[in-house]
Amino acid sequence: MTNPILVEVLRSTLVESRHRGAVAVADADGGAVLAIGDVTTPIFPRSAVKALQALPLVETGAAAAFGFGDEELALACASHSGEPGHVAGVTGMLAKAGLDAAALRCGAHWPIAQPALVELARTGQPSALHNNCSGKHAGFLCVACAKGIDHADYWRPQHPVQREVRAVLENLTGAALSDDRCAIDGCSVPTWAIPLQNLAYGFAKFATGRGLAPERARAAARLRAACTQRPWHVAGTGRFCTEIMQLFGARVFVKTGAEGVYCGALPEQGFGIAVKCDDGAGRAAQAIMAALIARFLPLGDAERVALAHFMHPTLRNWKGFEVGSLRVVDGNLQPPV
Amino acid sequence: MTNPILVEVLRSTLVESRHRGAVAVADADGGAVLAIGDVTTPIFPRSAVKALQALPLVETGAAAAFGFGDEELALACASHSGEPGHVAGVTGMLAKAGLDAAALRCGAHWPIAQPALVELARTGQPSALHNNCSGKHAGFLCVACAKGIDHADYWRPQHPVQREVRAVLENLTGAALSDDRCAIDGCSVPTWAIPLQNLAYGFAKFATGRGLAPERARAAARLRAACTQRPWHVAGTGRFCTEIMQLFGARVFVKTGAEGVYCGALPEQGFGIAVKCDDGAGRAAQAIMAALIARFLPLGDAERVALAHFMHPTLRNWKGFEVGSLRVVDGNLQPPV
Repeated sequence: MTNPILVEVLRSTLVESRHRGAVAVADADGGAVLAIGDVTTPIFPRSAVKALQALPLVETGAAAAFGFGDEELALACASHSGEPGHVAGVTGMLAKAGLDAAALRCGAHWPIAQPALVELARTGQPSALHNNCSGKHAGFLCVACAKGIDHADYWRPQHPVQREVRAVLENLTGAALSDDRCAIDGCSVPTWAIPLQNLAYGFAKFATGRGLAPERARAAARLRAACTQRPWHVAGTGRFCTEIMQLFGARVFVKTGAEGVYCGALPEQGFGIAVKCDDGAGRAAQAIMAALIARFLPLGDAERVALAHFMHPTLRNWKGFEVGSLRVVDGNLQPPV
Repeated sequence: MTNPILVEVLRSTLVESRHRGAVAVADADGGAVLAIGDVTTPIFPRSAVKALQALPLVETGAAAAFGFGDEELALACASHSGEPGHVAGVTGMLAKAGLDAAALRCGAHWPIAQPALVELARTGQPSALHNNCSGKHAGFLCVACAKGIDHADYWRPQHPVQREVRAVLENLTGAALSDDRCAIDGCSVPTWAIPLQNLAYGFAKFATGRGLAPERARAAARLRAACTQRPWHVAGTGRFCTEIMQLFGARVFVKTGAEGVYCGALPEQGFGIAVKCDDGAGRAAQAIMAALIARFLPLGDAERVALAHFMHPTLRNWKGFEVGSLRVVDGNLQPPV
């Protein structure tokens, strides 16, 4: 099936580019609240499921054993910008487990946010700590250390930590994860393809704890609280995930993934959300997620204005002139009148 | 009409993302050599027409008056990476016209290539000289100076320089440019929407000089020679435009534009090429352009291998592991067997 156009990019008044995609919103019983486009073909959720991948860190007692607070748990769920506070936080997580950056197997890259890149370039070089996934990797390492398992190969699909992550993803999403739909993520851990409708179902359970064993439900609530109370640690200065969770607090959890993926949880509504843009465009996935929040949450005036800014951002050029805009175009993504 | 999928992005063996687009290849009589998707709706060509926008610089005698060589003419056609050699070259162009960076109205941005950004961050701040369009803007300023016109508003649609650029674009492409299809480009000059089939026709005339007044045909040949002899000045280290023109020399001219546009000229075949990806993806437009070169040019073994690398690049993660690939999938884009 051909997914519909969900976002248009305008230059002046003409459509310059367009983004197709699919959206699933589900409740914790697996009921479909909204389905746009193909929600049954497995897609790679990439970093959008980091909060689910972090459940073993809490459930196993590793986070408690190392005395992790909200900031450290938020970093375990993060695609962070590599700002100094993120790097210090991940360094601290590793130190509590008796480790340092040498244990990380995520690879090094320059910070994903340009201001952080410029700041680092002035004083140094990126290390694995600056990798946007370093908090997630620190979390995996801490699980291995707390269990007394050799941590050297913590990133490989057959390592006990990744096998546990796989079992958690299957339990949450209800999807059978298949070796022939497993690929390697940017940070080298496995990423399993999962249908959007199952991802939405998994995030509805993450949002509510419904259908989860008591310990898992508590771990989900703990991670949601950490991320929504420390949203800067989940992304970084000026980033969508951070700004949305700063705005809505515990009412909204959102997490971006590479190649145009977004997942989210609306605890008050009991809904989970999963978005994938066909072409991998993050700018479109973000606008769609803003539109979904506007559609499903009762909003105050300030919240409505802030969301409109993300749904229909003005595009400016290098001189600051207004040159165009983005707009969400699918009728199913419009807020109630 | 729905444009076809032209490029797939694979992670492991599964398609993770897909890019739709349209392609026009034409000869200098306006004959369609190849048309894929919608080639009649106007699209913004953005920086892909910089070489056409630079024709007045040569035709008016401004380039000769200021003693411009290949490097300066290539910079006038460039979306450069803001490397030190680019900045020095544009500074030199302005100096020959008695100007400096203060005359540029393109705005400042950090270099578009990360290594150049890192290098600059270690020592300074970006200026308008680092803007990827600074060479084009220097060219516009030089036209105004050579003609003795006030250059302050050289970037505005009603300025004589931009009116001349507009007339050149209409002459080359055969498209009537309309004020209601004019927008502001990233560097603040006008960008007029033009159908892909007309852009391809325009580049076929640029490739051959056919159908152009003698002075314009000579100017086109001069700019092609400059770009294909100094391809580093048209883009920068490791960039597609640079590497393709280094590989093929005078046999291929290619130029990228923002939002998934590519234009090209194959002088020996007499063909012009125009590509637009629906979603604005540069990675896909580049792979399509490589496929078009492979389809229309007789290739040696080394050239075939080099093009395959651009058509079907291997994707690696931060640790250097192979995680996937891009592939061009439309049968019309495959080389002859």
